[in-house]
Amino acid sequence: MAHPVIAVDAMGSDHGPAVVVRGAAEASRTTGAHIRLVGDPTAIARVLDAVSHDPDRISIEPAAGTIPMDADPQAALKAAPDASLPTAARLASQQGGADALVTAGHTGAAILACAAAFRRLPGVRRTALAAVIPTEQRHGPKQDPFALLLDAGATVRVESDDLVSFALMGAAYARVVSANPVPKVALLSNGTEPLKGTPEGVEAHRRLVHAKGIDFIGNIEGVDIPRGTADVIVTDGFTGNITLKMLEGISETVLDLARAAHRSRLTWRLGLWLLQGGIRRLKEVTDWKQYGGAPILGFDRLCIKAHGRSNPTAIRNAIRVAERCVAQQLTERISESLSQTRGMEPAG
Amino acid sequence: MAHPVIAVDAMGSDHGPAVVVRGAAEASRTTGAHIRLVGDPTAIARVLDAVSHDPDRISIEPAAGTIPMDADPQAALKAAPDASLPTAARLASQQGGADALVTAGHTGAAILACAAAFRRLPGVRRTALAAVIPTEQRHGPKQDPFALLLDAGATVRVESDDLVSFALMGAAYARVVSANPVPKVALLSNGTEPLKGTPEGVEAHRRLVHAKGIDFIGNIEGVDIPRGTADVIVTDGFTGNITLKMLEGISETVLDLARAAHRSRLTWRLGLWLLQGGIRRLKEVTDWKQYGGAPILGFDRLCIKAHGRSNPTAIRNAIRVAERCVAQQLTERISESLSQTRGMEPAG
Repeated sequence: MAHPVIAVDAMGSDHGPAVVVRGAAEASRTTGAHIRLVGDPTAIARVLDAVSHDPDRISIEPAAGTIPMDADPQAALKAAPDASLPTAARLASQQGGADALVTAGHTGAAILACAAAFRRLPGVRRTALAAVIPTEQRHGPKQDPFALLLDAGATVRVESDDLVSFALMGAAYARVVSANPVPKVALLSNGTEPLKGTPEGVEAHRRLVHAKGIDFIGNIEGVDIPRGTADVIVTDGFTGNITLKMLEGISETVLDLARAAHRSRLTWRLGLWLLQGGIRRLKEVTDWKQYGGAPILGFDRLCIKAHGRSNPTAIRNAIRVAERCVAQQLTERISESLSQTRGMEPAG
Repeated sequence: MAHPVIAVDAMGSDHGPAVVVRGAAEASRTTGAHIRLVGDPTAIARVLDAVSHDPDRISIEPAAGTIPMDADPQAALKAAPDASLPTAARLASQQGGADALVTAGHTGAAILACAAAFRRLPGVRRTALAAVIPTEQRHGPKQDPFALLLDAGATVRVESDDLVSFALMGAAYARVVSANPVPKVALLSNGTEPLKGTPEGVEAHRRLVHAKGIDFIGNIEGVDIPRGTADVIVTDGFTGNITLKMLEGISETVLDLARAAHRSRLTWRLGLWLLQGGIRRLKEVTDWKQYGGAPILGFDRLCIKAHGRSNPTAIRNAIRVAERCVAQQLTERISESLSQTRGMEPAG
């Protein structure tokens, strides 16, 4: 297979194009991807000329305008159909264009742009955004310190069908990014018993017991999220979004409280100074921004949504993940897994 | 008004009757409550005789059997209709029996026992379990370091009606326990905009804007839970249960990671030793078990569900909260608030 071609939305980021272009430049030298940077050619070239990159592996695709990070995504896409994000999505949908899309732009706009440019895989009713969350237990042969949680906010209300698809798609993704041959998949619920939860969750549970190629461990509870009992945690986008943002809030709160303690006593200050190494390690586990981006799963093309506050390394990591998913034919694998499981299901 | 009479389920606790009886004995000396301890008279008397208590404020009501903490609640209540929990609930429903119920027993069984013995308040379709969660910001004139979250697991799937009732009931409870005259009430959602969230949440949002006597601040996100942006957080029991258990899991995980750091380096060990005071303070904020129990709201009688692992002080606190709620006529206030808001609502 030739180099996977990754379309990168150069303009979507909290920090402007410089960060994205620098990350892409690094990726051109250190990954197997060919990168097509989509956006304002002058702005892109200005940054690119100043940094080390592999000119055979990176090119510029002009696009006019940007989707602002705080815009209403539907209105913004309508107002700027040729902005960098929708242009990059269209590029990734074309034969000879690109194989996957990476953006650090607006999440809602990324999902809408993909929905307009890509096709949903057969049997997928709703797409899912998967996020990595830090956990105490490690996962897979690479001992990754994170689990996958989906849906993180693409689909607020789900049917049992959707939860089953999310489970299969999440497992396929974990196989690629964590090299985990049989990831442990769980449904997030308000109790471990199979009949606990929403009616959709209970029905999905019944069906996942028969799903092939995944290790379905049943329901897990909130307490299992930070522990890391499962490799792939499946839930609706409403609960997933609240869960993720709560994790983010708790990291901030713990740091705030530590800072307050730091100010208040000399012994505490000395203690914190001695503990620096430990706190840094804790922060590394907690800071999931370092683990590339969140894939949007369910389309015939992959989109990796990097964090809006990504630094160049995070952008490079997101491009690397996209490259690996294309090389390992993630979407084809998801398709197969979906059609096998539909075929396997007991009637009723 | 005479002393509020509190029926206490003496047998329901992870640690057996001794802890509950000791807590009740302390409450008889330090609160305004008259306590009726329900359970095995011999077991209760054995503990009571050995501890300091006010004999004019405490009495024993015989009951046969216990609802086990790990039982299926429906089956257990059917098998033991005269166990301490259902007997105490019936006592609290009778004129001349008791005004409220306190139990540290099985949460699901407590809700079912209340549903069998009590009546739902007019306009309440579903009851809610409210829990206190530690927050960074402080709340009300007493500067309480916790917010109220409901429903914590009584009602898995809600209608907009239920969310509106939960908001009014939670605000009434916060007024009593936190002496907070106008608590800030929020809906938990996947975005702050009024149209974000489930259809039920969006409809509840529309109606709460017009509710009288509460300060409805709109939607909050997961990140606001540990921050403490709202005094009362309203959500369905599925999301509420996951949120609460996740908070519990995170406390445990942080302590585990700190212990691991403690073992690994001499400097870290010294640092942790110097930081002890700060960590204790953090743990106090995080350890919500100290704040009495979780009220079951929506019935004509109040039930305070104390944690199964409660110590005597937690039981005493739960009895004190029940006493205060009776003295300040919490259920009457909730009734009024519900009927006013129903009257106020715009058509459509």
